[in-house]
This record gives sequence, C-alpha cells and structure tokens, in this order.
Amino acid sequence: MAVVPPPNSQQEMRRRNLSRVLYAVAGAGPVSRAAIAARIGLTRASVSTLVEELLRAGFLVELGPGRSGGVGRPGNALSLTGMGPCGLGAEIGVDHLTVCAVDLAGQVRARSVEERPNGEAGPDSVLRRLSSLLDQVTGAAGAAGLRPAGLAVAVPGLVTRGSTTVARAPNLGWYETDLAAHLGAAVPGLPLTVENEANFGALAELWLGGEKGRTCPESAPLDFIHVSAEVGIGAGVVLDGELLRGTRGFAGELGHVPVQPDGPRCACGGSGCLEQYAGEAALLRAAGISVHGAGGRSAALARLRALADEGDEAALRALRRAGKALGIALTGAVNLLDPRAVLLGGALSGLAPWLLPALERELRGRAATQTSVPEVAVSAMGGDGPSLGAAHSVVRAVLDDPLPYAVAR
Amino acid sequence: MAVVPPPNSQQEMRRRNLSRVLYAVAGAGPVSRAAIAARIGLTRASVSTLVEELLRAGFLVELGPGRSGGVGRPGNALSLTGMGPCGLGAEIGVDHLTVCAVDLAGQVRARSVEERPNGEAGPDSVLRRLSSLLDQVTGAAGAAGLRPAGLAVAVPGLVTRGSTTVARAPNLGWYETDLAAHLGAAVPGLPLTVENEANFGALAELWLGGEKGRTCPESAPLDFIHVSAEVGIGAGVVLDGELLRGTRGFAGELGHVPVQPDGPRCACGGSGCLEQYAGEAALLRAAGISVHGAGGRSAALARLRALADEGDEAALRALRRAGKALGIALTGAVNLLDPRAVLLGGALSGLAPWLLPALERELRGRAATQTSVPEVAVSAMGGDGPSLGAAHSVVRAVLDDPLPYAVAR
Repeated sequence: MAVVPPPNSQQEMRRRNLSRVLYAVAGAGPVSRAAIAARIGLTRASVSTLVEELLRAGFLVELGPGRSGGVGRPGNALSLTGMGPCGLGAEIGVDHLTVCAVDLAGQVRARSVEERPNGEAGPDSVLRRLSSLLDQVTGAAGAAGLRPAGLAVAVPGLVTRGSTTVARAPNLGWYETDLAAHLGAAVPGLPLTVENEANFGALAELWLGGEKGRTCPESAPLDFIHVSAEVGIGAGVVLDGELLRGTRGFAGELGHVPVQPDGPRCACGGSGCLEQYAGEAALLRAAGISVHGAGGRSAALARLRALADEGDEAALRALRRAGKALGIALTGAVNLLDPRAVLLGGALSGLAPWLLPALERELRGRAATQTSVPEVAVSAMGGDGPSLGAAHSVVRAVLDDPLPYAVAR
Repeated sequence: MAVVPPPNSQQEMRRRNLSRVLYAVAGAGPVSRAAIAARIGLTRASVSTLVEELLRAGFLVELGPGRSGGVGRPGNALSLTGMGPCGLGAEIGVDHLTVCAVDLAGQVRARSVEERPNGEAGPDSVLRRLSSLLDQVTGAAGAAGLRPAGLAVAVPGLVTRGSTTVARAPNLGWYETDLAAHLGAAVPGLPLTVENEANFGALAELWLGGEKGRTCPESAPLDFIHVSAEVGIGAGVVLDGELLRGTRGFAGELGHVPVQPDGPRCACGGSGCLEQYAGEAALLRAAGISVHGAGGRSAALARLRALADEGDEAALRALRRAGKALGIALTGAVNLLDPRAVLLGGALSGLAPWLLPALERELRGRAATQTSVPEVAVSAMGGDGPSLGAAHSVVRAVLDDPLPYAVAR
C-alpha cells in the first residue's frame, strides 16, 4: 500500500499559500491583491495578510497605485523583488562553462561564459575554473543586491538520482565524480543540485517555453520529449508536467536506443545506438568534416551547416541519415510515452532544417496510429537551456517555500 | 505556471483521513485502532472517531477483542467488510471474456469466464455476451450481500484517455467503439472505466504483486515495465507508483517499437516492429505451428511449449529470435525510462524459460551502463492480471473516497 503523507497542519497550509501568492505574481507580472485572490481562489482578506508577510520578508515589492490594469478601484500593483535571493545556474559543457544568476522575477542578472575544451582537463582543473566563474557571477550579483539561494549544475552525463555525483560523463572522462567535494569551497553553505543537461534543458522548456512564445501548447499538463545534443545525444522527458528521472536518475538516454541492432559498436557497449548515426562525431565523420581543425567542434558544426546550405551531397546525405535515425529512435519513444510534442534543442536545433524532413517522414510512417504522431518543433532555448533551467530550479525552490530564504531570519 | 488546486477544507481533510484509515486496514489485515493510529500518524482519539463513522457506514467490521496480535491491552480488531460495495472487473480478450467481482477486503467473490473467439464477432455480439456474464456475476455478488460500485473493462487495444471509447483494437477489428453505448443497459447508473489490458495488468502488479510474494521490491516508489502479450504485445509502464497514460492515453505501445527498421511490414504501418518478431502470430509462424488447428490459439501455444520442451530446433530458434527482439525493444525502453524491473506477463510468462536467456543477453550487452540493467522477472498474475486490475481499480475508488458509497445515503 502507498506511503501515507503526514496530515496537513495550519502552518503547512500557510506556507503553501505564501508560495501560491508568489507563483500568482510570477505568472501574471505586476498584479493587484484582488487579482491574486481571483487567481488562486482565496479571499481578498487572506491574500492581503499573506502579501503583507511577503512584503515584510522582502519577496514582493509594491509598485504604487494604478498600475495593475484591472477594473474597479486600482490597487497597488505587486511584483517580485529584483533584490534578495537569486538562483545560480551553471553548465559544464564539453567545450564551455556557463554560469548565470537569475533573480526571483526570472531575469538573468549576471552571466559568465568560458569557451575552452573540458574533455581532457579532468575534474580538478575544470571545477577550479568553474569556481572562479562562480566567484565572478556571485560578485556581480552581490553588487546588484542579490545573494545566491543555491547552485544547480548541468552536466553532460548521468547523475545518480538524489546525489551530487556524476555517475558517468564519458565525453568528459568523468566517472563517479562528486561535485560537492570540488565546489563546496566556492559556494560555502549553499544547497547544491546536479542534473543531466538534457533534463535541465527540458525543465527550461517547461518553465520558460511558453513565455518565449514557443509552440508547445499552453494547457497543463505538458508532455514532451526534449532532445538535445552536445557531443552526446540526450533527452529530457516531461510527463504530466513533471520531469521523468527514472529509478537511478538515468532516464532519457535516447542516444543509446538501438536503431540498427547490428550497426556500429558504441562506446556504451551496445551496437547501432542512435548516437552512432546522429551524434555529432558520427554526423561530422559521415559528412567528411574533421573536428580537429581550427575552432574545434563549433567551427566544424558551422562548416557542416555551410556545406548543407551550399547543397553539398555528402553533408546532405549525412544529415538525412541522422534525421532518419532520430525518427526511428523517436518512433520507439513516442510509442512508449505518447508525448504531445517532440522538441529539438542544443546543437540539433541549428541543424533542424535538414534533419526534420527525414525525421518526420520516419515518425509519420511508423507511428502506431496517425493520430498519435506528436508535433515536432525546434526548442527556442538554444544553447542556454541547461544553465537557465538550472538557475530557475533554484528560483523555484525559493518560490516553493520562501520563508527560510527571508532576510530577517 | 501550474494550475493551483483549491485550498484544503476541514471536510476535505476528514474525507482524506477516512480514506487513510481504510487503506491502513486494507494494508495490515485485522488491526486495532491503536495500530491504525501508529500507522498513519494521527491521535488515537481522531482514529476512534473516524473508525466509528466507517463502522456506522458499513465499510469496517469489528472482529471482537484479542485478535490484533499487538502488545498492550488488546483492542477490538477491525477488518474491511465482505459485504456492501464491490468492484466489477471485466476483460475482453481476443478469445475469452472474463468478469469478476472483488469485495473491499480484496477477495474475488464471483467470477465468470467464457472461452470463445471474439475477433470476428463484432462489438454488438461480444458486448451482448459480456452483458450476460455481467448479469451472472452481479447476481452471484448480490446473493452474497454485495452491490457493484462501478465497472472497469480491460480491452486489447488503445483507449482514448478519459473516455470509454476503444480508439483501435485491430485484433478485435474495433475502431472508435464506445463501450458506454453498449454496456449502459447491463449496469444502469454504474460508473464505467475502460483501459488497455496491459495497463490494468500493470496496475494489478502494482497493487497486488507484493501481497502475492512477487519479486518486485517493496519500497515505494515503484518503477517497472509490465510487458504482456495476448495476440498483440503491450506494456504497462508504472513510474513512481503511477501508471503512465500518455497525452492521448496511448503510452506503452512496446509492440510497435522498431527493432529492425528494415524488417517485415506491420499492420500499424511501420516495419520491423517488435510484434513482427515476438508477437504470437510471428512466433507460431516461425516455429511452424498453425493457429487454425483444433483448440485455436491456446492449443497452438501449448504445442509451442511442448515442442520447446522436447528440444525442437525450429521452436527453440523462434523463441530465441523473439527473446532477442524483446531484448532490443526493452533496451530502448530501459534507456528512456530507467525502470527498476521488467516483468513478463500474459502469454509471455508461460514462455519465459525460453525467452529470458536471449532477452537478458541483449539487455545486458546493450544497456548504457551495467548498473542500469533492471531486474527481469515473471509476473505472478498470469492471465488474471487485467480483470483483477480492473476490479481493484473500482475497489480503490471506493477506498479513496468512501462516503458516497455508504448504505445510509
């Protein structure tokens, strides 16, 4: 039988209602107390009490009368603060490091990027450089009146669920690497979470996609597969509005779905995995482009796009083959998960014009029923998804339960 | 932003606590008020009040003193009633119909089965015969003091989420068939739910597997893929203890995951789907066994088992090929979902001794990391899973919110 949660107490209900007020403001922008009450179904009086508490604790600010745009007597519009707690998000990429600070209102307030290959440097060196980027961003955020409420790090590998340990990131050469041991000194006392980059990319889509005018339908719950590629191919699966993590935290490994069971051997131990057809290395190799030239991976990918634009047959053939393999792997995923949409992110988004025709042909031809073919679209997040998703996960932890982050404590 | 649920009221909390008491009794068997209080974390006094209400409404019965087996002063042991509301569960199979009635204590109290091919009879004829089985079972249940609280029907096809409509069940030849229109007269006024048979089979595993001493780990949350086969191959996916339904209700279509993209054409429109290698028809054909002989499908499957037992090379080769194909499709599923266990149910469970070696070889050889290979086990439910899962879904609806089902209303 299911585990029974403890009973609700008055205090829990108050904490929950404080959070609901904050999300109502986050979702609506500057908004009056009356509009919040209408939105969350509490009385005006209850909302006023909650709002006073959130103003005193410094999470909300009052913008003055007449700015809420509603009908009736204008109330003072409320907004989330641009000071106080912020979320630190980081991405460790195969050839870049990114750190950003996002305030409670969702604005990126500081950002620092270092482009440099991390694949052979080892965790000590990479995490030392990440620590110094964190210092820069924390310093800039502090100067703007912000203090980090937590740090979340996106990594190109498998992270053991509920831990800060990278179980394996073959493209970095990291195995059983605990980031807490390396990053603790850079962010003393801060909560640290570590998550696969495709997962944070998918969460960025879930949390920010709509605001950016993306195609994913607004109606909750959301179900989608967010496919992203850096050197490897990963997917973040969102079902009923929740990220699917899997028993060990290893869900979403689309890159190792077999697409040709007798195909080329893969580093994972299998053969004919999607990564052997649509992974960056396989794609560049098939197009006859070296990744070891000047500019490394990003120059090689730009070259692939340029060749495809010029109608180069080898480049187009490699992209068709990759699109077809993506379509086969996604047919399996669609049959198992029945998502509303498939979104291409990361490096794949830039190649979408050439990948999509073959991908969609496979998906439409193979899907078990014509009505179950999901929408296929390009993610609007681009390469920023993982670091933004990471930073917003910290912001949402504050909005979920604000009082522990109040200044006065 | 997420939809905000309405605030908890006193009344809601009472309803929830009544449900928690019922589940505590369901999970523990005959149990004292003190043991319930300890189990759900409420005071003894609160539990006594809730228990009195449930006794008055006829959901609990008192077994007399000294039977709870606990320490201290023996309290009167409480048990769920074997009278009152019951769940009606039905399965429409390709060659059988099953109806059963399960009481609140979880016991099957009446059951009726008809073995007969349904594949070419059409919905009118099949559902008329199902209605008369329902009459029999309802009559027998009524004679034992039980009255149906709802009917749930398992079907071998895709059911549109939140509806009673079979979108497609190719092996029955049913398309967009609304069961409510056909069954309403047999069960007037009863809530009707319709679900894919693999889904109800997976729910039976989730709800009853542990009690039957199955291998699935006890610790919640449970994550597993329950593969079942009748004529087609389907899967029920349970993640964090919840059935995965998908946007349209079509999740778990393992039978149409591509395992050899250029393989034989499938009725679904794709090619090289798992069903073309491990589906019953493909398996029997590869083993050289006709399904059109006396005894039909079940005789043909028994013949396959007998031939495999005798070491017949064609039978063994067909089973190895099917096991390998299952392993390839499940590798994709495991990479996407990272489940704790894979369970073989339905017709596959009887063939497990011959399927498992090749299946596990593929899974172990291909899984992205050795540590992420899930346990593979045989379901203990056998062919009864779907009808039991269906009946228990109704029982759980009563335990979730009992008062609307009380006699006194």
